[in-house]
Amino acid sequence: MKFDLIKTDEKSKARAGVIETAHGKIETPIFMPVGTVASVKGVHQRELEEDIKAQIILGNTYHLYLRPGLDVLEQAGGLHKFNGWERPILTDSGGYQVYSLSGTRKIVEEGVTFQSHIDGSRHLFTPEGVMDIQRTIGADIIMAFDECTPYPCEYSYAKNSMEMTHRWLKRCCDRFDETEGKYGYDQTLFPIVQGSTYKDLRKESAEKIASFEREGNAIGGLSVGEPAEEMYEMAEIVCDILPADKPRYLMGVGTPENIIENIALGVDMFDCVMPTRNARNGMVFTSEGIMNMKNKKWEKCFEPLDPNGTSFVDSFYSKAYVRHLFVSKERLAGQIASIHNLAFYLWLVKEARRHILEGDFTSWKDSIVPKLRNRL
Amino acid sequence: MKFDLIKTDEKSKARAGVIETAHGKIETPIFMPVGTVASVKGVHQRELEEDIKAQIILGNTYHLYLRPGLDVLEQAGGLHKFNGWERPILTDSGGYQVYSLSGTRKIVEEGVTFQSHIDGSRHLFTPEGVMDIQRTIGADIIMAFDECTPYPCEYSYAKNSMEMTHRWLKRCCDRFDETEGKYGYDQTLFPIVQGSTYKDLRKESAEKIASFEREGNAIGGLSVGEPAEEMYEMAEIVCDILPADKPRYLMGVGTPENIIENIALGVDMFDCVMPTRNARNGMVFTSEGIMNMKNKKWEKCFEPLDPNGTSFVDSFYSKAYVRHLFVSKERLAGQIASIHNLAFYLWLVKEARRHILEGDFTSWKDSIVPKLRNRL
Ligand SMILES: [Zn+2]
Ligand SMILES: [Zn+2]
Repeated sequence: MKFDLIKTDEKSKARAGVIETAHGKIETPIFMPVGTVASVKGVHQRELEEDIKAQIILGNTYHLYLRPGLDVLEQAGGLHKFNGWERPILTDSGGYQVYSLSGTRKIVEEGVTFQSHIDGSRHLFTPEGVMDIQRTIGADIIMAFDECTPYPCEYSYAKNSMEMTHRWLKRCCDRFDETEGKYGYDQTLFPIVQGSTYKDLRKESAEKIASFEREGNAIGGLSVGEPAEEMYEMAEIVCDILPADKPRYLMGVGTPENIIENIALGVDMFDCVMPTRNARNGMVFTSEGIMNMKNKKWEKCFEPLDPNGTSFVDSFYSKAYVRHLFVSKERLAGQIASIHNLAFYLWLVKEARRHILEGDFTSWKDSIVPKLRNRL
Repeated sequence: MKFDLIKTDEKSKARAGVIETAHGKIETPIFMPVGTVASVKGVHQRELEEDIKAQIILGNTYHLYLRPGLDVLEQAGGLHKFNGWERPILTDSGGYQVYSLSGTRKIVEEGVTFQSHIDGSRHLFTPEGVMDIQRTIGADIIMAFDECTPYPCEYSYAKNSMEMTHRWLKRCCDRFDETEGKYGYDQTLFPIVQGSTYKDLRKESAEKIASFEREGNAIGGLSVGEPAEEMYEMAEIVCDILPADKPRYLMGVGTPENIIENIALGVDMFDCVMPTRNARNGMVFTSEGIMNMKNKKWEKCFEPLDPNGTSFVDSFYSKAYVRHLFVSKERLAGQIASIHNLAFYLWLVKEARRHILEGDFTSWKDSIVPKLRNRL
């Protein structure tokens, strides 16, 4: 992997760059659609490529490990070959999903034991095992196995957990560095900063993570319920420590506003299920604000879904038609809204990048952020 | 509407023709995808047009009347404007759906009272009212309001019902002929032959329906549970009576094999929910036979979904990937299978047409029908 930092904004810490992977380039800042179980829900791969203009997608190690399983993925020649997405892929470490299985999982120094949500079968994820799994999945960027603490989190728990995450990182790096990609192309490993919402822990973790000198770094444990101001505070502390010449990935963030604010703090990469999950519930994000498509107010609004939108659904379908599909619980409703929201997120980060390059990112940010909050 | 009968097969009664409507031409024999509530489930309109190559779709009057409702449809400028499908549309009369609401509907000479499956509200459909509703929906081809008898059906019930359908047809024609299209283009009304599985009733009904001299004719009350042989017997009796210079539409049929067999008897138009409904359950129809995509046998089959298929999903996605999506209950599974099945049905009728024109329909039919039945 290679990262070129092209420009840093003068009035903020926003950056524009280019990541090069074995599966192509990624222009940063970038948003990564989430393809949990090897598919971005309701969206065809050609739509992702041609309409949404996604440059990289995310896969979930926990889900892929359970289904289709490593045997199938390996025989397919890796996830890219399996799902036909030939652009870059990033996989999470499975940690976040495993911790969410409350009651059935147990965290010890060795790793985490958990029960499958599908059939109740017992499994063990260790730092080494998760490296091997992600080698088999074949993502271009793979994530270290960490513990993602909940919010709020006691200081002592956060500190102990962070320290274990650091010890696990050493084990991840050792395993990663002594193994090779299985399909003839390079993979890279991003470590993850933890530390909950404690400034001193975030600082300590960022310094520790930076010291591993990997090709990129991630910030985990945010967007787990804390107020946005705390998220921004932590992201800022961490971004100021993580090296400027490597991409910074803020995991699981967030709303359009969250993304713009974190870009301003120096974050380069984002992922979130929000654009697709909320789409399936009728929530549509636009440059003028948020629409609830189930709302009666759209019943006879025959205007295009989003006159400013960049994807075919925005001009082809009317608000009234999409509202009708949601009210009638038609599958096409979620498909249309998912394509729209993802295309909007990709448009948003591309606009941010353009304004960073043109030197007016901050004034653009100030003008768009209030609009993003509107309820239409 | 205009119908040109281009060729009739010499060894069978299969026909190739062209229907011209205000929204364009339809090459027959044709299959019409079902767009119940103004959307073909899980399929974008551009996929219908470009990938599936649908020439006409069907809408359900009962569903559209309840949602989005006539007020919305009229203000939109009709269904074509509402859902963005600018090619021909046919609407059923709502009869079939209303009868399916067993327990809540009551059939009398005046019409049918029923309760909405959505909110339990009471409604009355009459022959006149259903003409008005379909005028408002704005389909190119609208269907007479009939009673569709169940199978099996007592002779006396079938006879009385058929006679009422004939009386209702007079009322439909009168109302239709004294009204005009609401959106500046012509619509046409097809009457429906009934008579259950009784030869003498089918003959009587076909003669009666033919005597109305409408621009096209339909055969209803089949594919309701009777053995295929009885369906073919009734279709043959009716086709032999209905005028050759007008299109014949066999409602609600059926499997790929049913369609080929009925084309051989002189049927020109078909519709059925089978390709989309079965797709959502994992059943994929191909020229080599039927696949259950949930089957373990596809787990590691990385070959294309259908090497002979004509749509992008057939070459882009592998059997193993589609199987994984079905097992994981991913939405994309049903989307892929729906596009495939509809494209296959459209390919099948196009192939039938080509062989009719080339003069070898019967030998083609004899070679493909046994393959269509295969379980792969
Ligand atoms: Zn999120
Ligand atoms: Zn059917």
